[in-house]
Amino acid sequence: MAQVKQITKKSEDISGWYNDVIEQSKLVEHGPVRGTMIWRPKGFALWEAIQKNLNIKIKDLGAESVYFPLFIPESFLKKEKAHVKGFSPELAVVTHGGGEKLTEPIIVRPTSETIMYDAFSRWIESYNDLPLVINQWANVVRWEKRPYFFLRTTEFLWQEGHSAHETNEEAEVLVEKALNLYIDFYRQVLGIYGYAGRKSESEKFPGADSTFTYEMLMPDGKVVQGCTSHNLGQNFAKVFKVEFTGKTGKRSFVHQTSWGLSSRSIGAMILAHGDDNGLVLPPEIAPVQVVIIPILTKSSEKNKILSLAGKTFIKLEQANIRVKLDDSESSPGWKFNQYDLEGVPLRIEIGLSELNSERLKVVRRDTKDARDIHINVIEVEIENILREMQVNLLDKSRRFTEKNTRQADNYKEFNEIMNTTRGFIEAFWCESASCEAKIKEETKATTRCLPIDSIEASGQCIYCGKSAKNRWLFG
Amino acid sequence: MAQVKQITKKSEDISGWYNDVIEQSKLVEHGPVRGTMIWRPKGFALWEAIQKNLNIKIKDLGAESVYFPLFIPESFLKKEKAHVKGFSPELAVVTHGGGEKLTEPIIVRPTSETIMYDAFSRWIESYNDLPLVINQWANVVRWEKRPYFFLRTTEFLWQEGHSAHETNEEAEVLVEKALNLYIDFYRQVLGIYGYAGRKSESEKFPGADSTFTYEMLMPDGKVVQGCTSHNLGQNFAKVFKVEFTGKTGKRSFVHQTSWGLSSRSIGAMILAHGDDNGLVLPPEIAPVQVVIIPILTKSSEKNKILSLAGKTFIKLEQANIRVKLDDSESSPGWKFNQYDLEGVPLRIEIGLSELNSERLKVVRRDTKDARDIHINVIEVEIENILREMQVNLLDKSRRFTEKNTRQADNYKEFNEIMNTTRGFIEAFWCESASCEAKIKEETKATTRCLPIDSIEASGQCIYCGKSAKNRWLFG
Repeated sequence: MAQVKQITKKSEDISGWYNDVIEQSKLVEHGPVRGTMIWRPKGFALWEAIQKNLNIKIKDLGAESVYFPLFIPESFLKKEKAHVKGFSPELAVVTHGGGEKLTEPIIVRPTSETIMYDAFSRWIESYNDLPLVINQWANVVRWEKRPYFFLRTTEFLWQEGHSAHETNEEAEVLVEKALNLYIDFYRQVLGIYGYAGRKSESEKFPGADSTFTYEMLMPDGKVVQGCTSHNLGQNFAKVFKVEFTGKTGKRSFVHQTSWGLSSRSIGAMILAHGDDNGLVLPPEIAPVQVVIIPILTKSSEKNKILSLAGKTFIKLEQANIRVKLDDSESSPGWKFNQYDLEGVPLRIEIGLSELNSERLKVVRRDTKDARDIHINVIEVEIENILREMQVNLLDKSRRFTEKNTRQADNYKEFNEIMNTTRGFIEAFWCESASCEAKIKEETKATTRCLPIDSIEASGQCIYCGKSAKNRWLFG
Repeated sequence: MAQVKQITKKSEDISGWYNDVIEQSKLVEHGPVRGTMIWRPKGFALWEAIQKNLNIKIKDLGAESVYFPLFIPESFLKKEKAHVKGFSPELAVVTHGGGEKLTEPIIVRPTSETIMYDAFSRWIESYNDLPLVINQWANVVRWEKRPYFFLRTTEFLWQEGHSAHETNEEAEVLVEKALNLYIDFYRQVLGIYGYAGRKSESEKFPGADSTFTYEMLMPDGKVVQGCTSHNLGQNFAKVFKVEFTGKTGKRSFVHQTSWGLSSRSIGAMILAHGDDNGLVLPPEIAPVQVVIIPILTKSSEKNKILSLAGKTFIKLEQANIRVKLDDSESSPGWKFNQYDLEGVPLRIEIGLSELNSERLKVVRRDTKDARDIHINVIEVEIENILREMQVNLLDKSRRFTEKNTRQADNYKEFNEIMNTTRGFIEAFWCESASCEAKIKEETKATTRCLPIDSIEASGQCIYCGKSAKNRWLFG
């Protein structure tokens, strides 16, 4: 019987804990090419659940599913200057194919704007063809020097949505809708609180007019970017000649957007909710929401206990709860540890006392709270507890984030925060690239976003003292 | 209003027809890198439907979903000699990553045996870990010199299933189950008849002990291989050290299988069923099964007709029929041609006479048969017709295949068939590689398979005249 190995404590060494918990719960492991990742069944089940959940929301945006080639001619990327400059250090290049050296190197897609918009220039003729909204689920490659499971991998999985519109206003609406979709997903499904806002000029997507993001604070005080939604303006349209004939017969360039969420979201979820015992999966995303463990100490009642466990299983399954019955020969204690490690939201224990009382012991993964619930109402109560747990995870994440969001009114305060607690810092910044670069160099803090609900105010840039009209979020 | 362009007649030039019908029905188009393919919404909807259908069957085999990296170290492929030899001419090689020349070239996966079995060697310890059955949906790359939509593309989409077992018998069972799954899929879902059988030594998968296949005859007399299911024996297990401890404590190599079906299946479906007017999609796979077209010639009754069309739409949708109502401003005639081109199985016309009689005109895409059906029984009758059409497509395919399967009792007859009708040829062959190679060189016919239901007989090899115990299927 394999033992549940000791994992590093989250509170003592979060990176060590993160690697331990991911490997020991068998989510993923390192691939043989540095920076790549092998998704084992338990890890890929999470991505399948995310795809299922997000795909419904994406189709509600009006997006149609497509698939574009993995291979992009190098010349395509070079067409938009900011774009190629942004991606150059991260590219994987195919130089040989079919046993021969290629005349033009081929790029393994780091994102698909260029190859898609070349197609848009053929697909779009008039306003009748607009808006054009598409989405693809794909693997993309960006060379990663310091790989870290889920959060920084050379190949990662994502969805990328792209759209073309008649006007900038319509593009702005879609950028906002996509952003809201992601905010909802992170909050309601993954249970992670964060701030949505606009990226600075230096942090925005290469080739975009503006980039919006959802930024989440992790327990180690570091910030993870959860998604992006870009207004690309007419930048790519001009380069790839994506034009349409309007109602008046006038030819114009389209206004474009792109937006994506990647497998990095799983990394954020693990960091945000896990504890010293392992993963804590939000019920909405957990492939198994409830595990039933029969306690078969008195063998004389074994069959009766198994029968009650089976009855419970059927009741929950009929209520569309994702339930697993583990009647394998491992000890109950081993199973408790194992399913705690794997982050299963609820555990139901059924032993002799449960058999006699008809009240089943239900233990919550996040709080460790135990309740006894009568078999007659088990499915209703389980649904309630799953909902409570989902809400609780978001609340906890919100409290943590708000507690660790601090205002710094001068550079001294700013530095103190970065040297001690870290977390989010709200500070006035003049929006000049040089102040931003120096703050980053001296404190390691980057501008995360200008929150969408920020109120225009006035103050002085914490770095240069010049007038600033917004408190930006650093982290 | 875009016109429906004239397409090449299938009966006159099947390749021209194939390209025309695919491009004009907007399924896919060529990507900018030669041999790659852009999947437009109408094309990708077919692959999504195939995934949905097949994934249920694959999970029924006991397979768990995984995802392995796109990038494979060159050294992995070199470990199994037959394997690397088989794939060498088809590889795409990444030589630069992150702005630097790599020390070891990386292969873009042409299939995942090597990278998966390296992981199996870590995952499998004892018989408790067996059988191990996994599946992934992925993009793979095999350099293609003569690209052809769906059937031969440099990047293609597929599922690849892989398993490891204690015994060869168990591996054989899975190979057969996977093959049967594909046979069912082709027959019941895509409506294409074909022959299942074992590949010859020279045509089997590089590294396999034996390869099984489903071979389908296309209207041009050429044969398409629809899937493969391989018994890999212990070949890869020995190379990648995939060993397990058995119940008696003895260490043994596992017995492995792999099996896959690709986006090529869509190409076969288009070729098999399409006609001069465009695609014919089998109801089981059609993203839209029924299109409702209101005929709004008498504007005074426009609202009543639209209301009846709407009522029909709701009735069909509630019966879980995939239905579309096209009340756009294009002419009915244009719409008829357009949906014929796109292969929508059934069309319902609702005009003035339908309004008065309450009997709707239903036209079948495959036979062009028209029937008038009362609105009260429309959903029941539509379900019946869709089922009839599904059966009819397979019957037609079977009749065509059987009619074009001929026995050749000597090399002269064999040559005559290849020079005239082509199609499948059943002929005795001594199973020597040299006869096989010479037959291929002289006639262009390859061994397709030894049908699984073939009866051992005895005869003389059509090439060398030596004794032969089976009639193989050539084509």
